Amino acid sequence: MSLNVRPDERIDELIVKDYRLIQPLDGYRFSIDPVLLCSFVQTPLNVKVIDLGTGNGIIPVLLAATKETSSIVGIEIQADMVDRARRSVSLNNLEQKVEIRHADIRQIAESFSAETFDVAVTNPPYRQPQSGRHAKGEERLLARHEVAGDLKDFLSAAKYLLKSGGWFYIVYLAERLTDLVTEMRAAKLEPKRMRLVHSRDGDDASLVLVEGRRNGRPGLTVEPPLVIYVGPGREYSPEVQNLFKGSLSAKINKSGADVA
Amino acid sequence: MSLNVRPDERIDELIVKDYRLIQPLDGYRFSIDPVLLCSFVQTPLNVKVIDLGTGNGIIPVLLAATKETSSIVGIEIQADMVDRARRSVSLNNLEQKVEIRHADIRQIAESFSAETFDVAVTNPPYRQPQSGRHAKGEERLLARHEVAGDLKDFLSAAKYLLKSGGWFYIVYLAERLTDLVTEMRAAKLEPKRMRLVHSRDGDDASLVLVEGRRNGRPGLTVEPPLVIYVGPGREYSPEVQNLFKGSLSAKINKSGADVA
Repeated sequence: MSLNVRPDERIDELIVKDYRLIQPLDGYRFSIDPVLLCSFVQTPLNVKVIDLGTGNGIIPVLLAATKETSSIVGIEIQADMVDRARRSVSLNNLEQKVEIRHADIRQIAESFSAETFDVAVTNPPYRQPQSGRHAKGEERLLARHEVAGDLKDFLSAAKYLLKSGGWFYIVYLAERLTDLVTEMRAAKLEPKRMRLVHSRDGDDASLVLVEGRRNGRPGLTVEPPLVIYVGPGREYSPEVQNLFKGSLSAKINKSGADVA
Repeated sequence: MSLNVRPDERIDELIVKDYRLIQPLDGYRFSIDPVLLCSFVQTPLNVKVIDLGTGNGIIPVLLAATKETSSIVGIEIQADMVDRARRSVSLNNLEQKVEIRHADIRQIAESFSAETFDVAVTNPPYRQPQSGRHAKGEERLLARHEVAGDLKDFLSAAKYLLKSGGWFYIVYLAERLTDLVTEMRAAKLEPKRMRLVHSRDGDDASLVLVEGRRNGRPGLTVEPPLVIYVGPGREYSPEVQNLFKGSLSAKINKSGADVA
């Protein structure tokens, strides 16, 4: 197994079914965001699923670990991350279910045919190129900032890939909610279900989870908010603890894990 | 005083400073929605304020009762409601602060000059003409359904009336949130602050309160949700009770009051 892990990487355990993920010691590591996103997915996943900008492969591995995914493709533009995600797939013996492709979401038609997926999922970069704190290093920069594709690019790729009636799932910054729903509607990925994520009870929302439907009709359900932490420390709320205990458990946010 | 009230009307007390409102016995009566909207207004109101579709005049009377409004105009298309709102203004001796105008928001340029208001407020009809339950009678029909103006008409009127940098406040159906923020952005009333309203903890949101800014830059704050009821009955949550006890108190939702 050690053959699969480079000296500058480590293996993080995803508690579900002993699945594990290879992550860099000093690059972009997954935060709670993809975990919340995967828990928000409701569609049956015994269909063709694609993850746009899969990074270290956290979303395909989580979905394969927790949902009945028969086929999930993760695409990623950064070669290092593609390599790492592929090794995580092998490490978990998920080669039959998960395929990691090295591709650019801005050139999606070069790699995939139109309307060939039932579900598209994405945890895209949140920050506009010149806003927010600057991520350290190239890997984090592309994962966090809209350098290799902005929101419209990700939505255009989903629009192209999804069958009519197919489902789209995204986690995004709450402060950009207007950008998100405006652009989703423009891409004919009509917002159908939404959930705001608040770090603590009484805080403004930090993230928003949205389910869209390709060619869906207008009409949105805004679900009760999701609160991440309770108490004075970093203790997860009962709901988030249940996410981790239940079908979607992951040992995340321990020392060194990035939090958006 | 009885001269001011027709046989088919009654006077409802707004607890603030003994302000009162004349409401029909069998027409459209205000619900909690305008009370929540008024409590959401943060801008100083010692400026020129307009209420689009003022109905029985609940919003002008509430704002005059609770905020430092030096000048508030309420416009309403239904003559009966205009008459009733004017009598409520007189009943409360607010003629120096509040003016009720009989006007059509779709023909706003006939009654007002452009860019002459600092704040625009609206609790517009929520329902599309052929959707939702049908309101009884003409008065309720126009107040609840988009018969005499749809969302775009109300936003266009606000766009026309507001100075650049002016503030816009609206309460709307949560299920139409996408329509709302998309059309607000298109009308250059950029959403800046939002709050979801849930009837009870754990329920989907029923309403959304949004603050927009004329020619504002993108960037939205989604505040903690507002929960209306607690417990098994119709007891208001502590926050809503405080709204009523504090500067914005109103005896609402008693027998016969409409709830959206």
